[in-house]
Amino acid sequence: MKLASLKHGRDGKLILVSRDLSMAVDATDIAPTLQSALDDWDTIAPLLEKRYASLNNKTLDNTFTFTPTDCASPLPRAYQWVDGSAYVNHVELVRKARNATMPETFWTDPLMYQGMSDGFVGPKDDIELADPSWGCDFEAEIAAITGDMPMGTTAAEASSHIKLMMLVNDVSLRNLIPAELAKGFGFFQSKPASAFSPVAITPDELTDNWQAGKVHLPLHVHLNNEKFGSPDAGVDMTFDFYQLLEHVARSRHVSAGTIVGSGTVSNVDRSKGSCCLAEKRMLEIIEGGKAVTPFMTYGDKVAIEMFDTNGASIFGKIEQTVVPYSKKQ
Amino acid sequence: MKLASLKHGRDGKLILVSRDLSMAVDATDIAPTLQSALDDWDTIAPLLEKRYASLNNKTLDNTFTFTPTDCASPLPRAYQWVDGSAYVNHVELVRKARNATMPETFWTDPLMYQGMSDGFVGPKDDIELADPSWGCDFEAEIAAITGDMPMGTTAAEASSHIKLMMLVNDVSLRNLIPAELAKGFGFFQSKPASAFSPVAITPDELTDNWQAGKVHLPLHVHLNNEKFGSPDAGVDMTFDFYQLLEHVARSRHVSAGTIVGSGTVSNVDRSKGSCCLAEKRMLEIIEGGKAVTPFMTYGDKVAIEMFDTNGASIFGKIEQTVVPYSKKQ
Repeated sequence: MKLASLKHGRDGKLILVSRDLSMAVDATDIAPTLQSALDDWDTIAPLLEKRYASLNNKTLDNTFTFTPTDCASPLPRAYQWVDGSAYVNHVELVRKARNATMPETFWTDPLMYQGMSDGFVGPKDDIELADPSWGCDFEAEIAAITGDMPMGTTAAEASSHIKLMMLVNDVSLRNLIPAELAKGFGFFQSKPASAFSPVAITPDELTDNWQAGKVHLPLHVHLNNEKFGSPDAGVDMTFDFYQLLEHVARSRHVSAGTIVGSGTVSNVDRSKGSCCLAEKRMLEIIEGGKAVTPFMTYGDKVAIEMFDTNGASIFGKIEQTVVPYSKKQ
Repeated sequence: MKLASLKHGRDGKLILVSRDLSMAVDATDIAPTLQSALDDWDTIAPLLEKRYASLNNKTLDNTFTFTPTDCASPLPRAYQWVDGSAYVNHVELVRKARNATMPETFWTDPLMYQGMSDGFVGPKDDIELADPSWGCDFEAEIAAITGDMPMGTTAAEASSHIKLMMLVNDVSLRNLIPAELAKGFGFFQSKPASAFSPVAITPDELTDNWQAGKVHLPLHVHLNNEKFGSPDAGVDMTFDFYQLLEHVARSRHVSAGTIVGSGTVSNVDRSKGSCCLAEKRMLEIIEGGKAVTPFMTYGDKVAIEMFDTNGASIFGKIEQTVVPYSKKQ
């Protein structure tokens, strides 16, 4: 099943989107918003699935053309967004670039941070940047949306708690990170609003490419319409989504609508390219002593998308342009 | 105006509470939940204020006795909870106890972290603890709830964005903190669900005790019915709420219903006692070489309350007991 939220108020209007992303149908009579559907998923999901089947069978009258630019992020705001760094290769590279060794525990204990979730930007919305010197970067990731999950849920139990999957652009302000992390309390100003793919899908839409808590498909990133990277999300993922969920639930109950991110997708095979500028810059530092690729500035455009084995877009495309921000008085 | 949320579903049922906390009246016809009121505050607040005046004048028929045990936290779940460390004296003490100096910038750049907000526990709810060796501590704080606040809002502009105030028990798992902070991404498992006071109030309820973004009243903490501390929240607060809000909004828009915490209230005057066990333990280490006061374990009870200059409770009392957690199968 594929779901999206048309821009409307604070929480959007729930629609179902056909498997080929061509057509859509209103679903607000079943659940007005995606959050309300997640709040009562066991009851709501079967009703949505039924309409989704009719949409794909073209037996509905009231369909309309699916237009991603009309979409907010599937959850325009959420009660929780936590992001992991499951591709430890990426973390090791960051450290290597500054001649720091990585603790061995990073291979066994997931790195995760609590991100802001009070307002995401839409998949085609601009990235409003107040100051280009902050070092604006994209991070292409996969994310899962959970249902309610009791404290102490283990990886072995986590599978049924994943309700939906999305792509993410986790926007990062790289030049604010060092000072912020040095303070010891993690990211804050360096992690502004993320954007998610136009469509959230149930894991079954990934067919055989969803295996053991990993998505086994390349994640494609373009910068200013040029290919930037397409690492395989199923390769070099040290912690699968089930392990990430166990980490999230260790000391607390987890509520429906929690979004859990994989962290920047990254492959050891360098020919696959990267899913963020920082990684490319690190490779440049390791290879040539200095970073050559600049961070994004006004007018730069990033696109993130994933295709099935037949070449069809699964989640729709995140496509965002960096623009100047000036506060309205 | 004083507002509370009766336990009901995921978001509670909005009620108005009389100034003396004795009586209450339903407000769900004006706004079903506190979040829905905050989403449309300029329209909703005047309607609530009118009924609140009638409630205090005893001209309403449909009132009932206010029972804090029936209450969820005013926002049972929220889109954002960010917590500061505005009482830098407290931070300095933590460092001193482990012979570390504190960077000078800590006096000028607020420390803040992104906390979990997908489900808070009620003001009288138990603290479910899976493992007492995690070192369960309370942290008594003040919090503000904001309206919408554009990116780049300055401290000078922040005043009108504070809609409500609450007390907080920011539960912390002290023995999980060192390893977690060493990983560099901030708190996560070490900060389980917080609890807030039964009642959220508009700042005008604090009368002259709300001055320049600070609450000038003692915050009273009792542990197992014995006085633990009552530092003045208006003293030694290095960053006022307006400065904290500026920090939150620097690189992102802030949405209505964002909760901003002050961090553990702490006075340089040691005779005032402390608002968390960790601070008392640090003072013991500095004075006698080792911590004597244990962290909380099963059966321990913490109470947090603030009184006006006439001795009347302003927010109602947070009162929580630590109990064993065992996952339901």
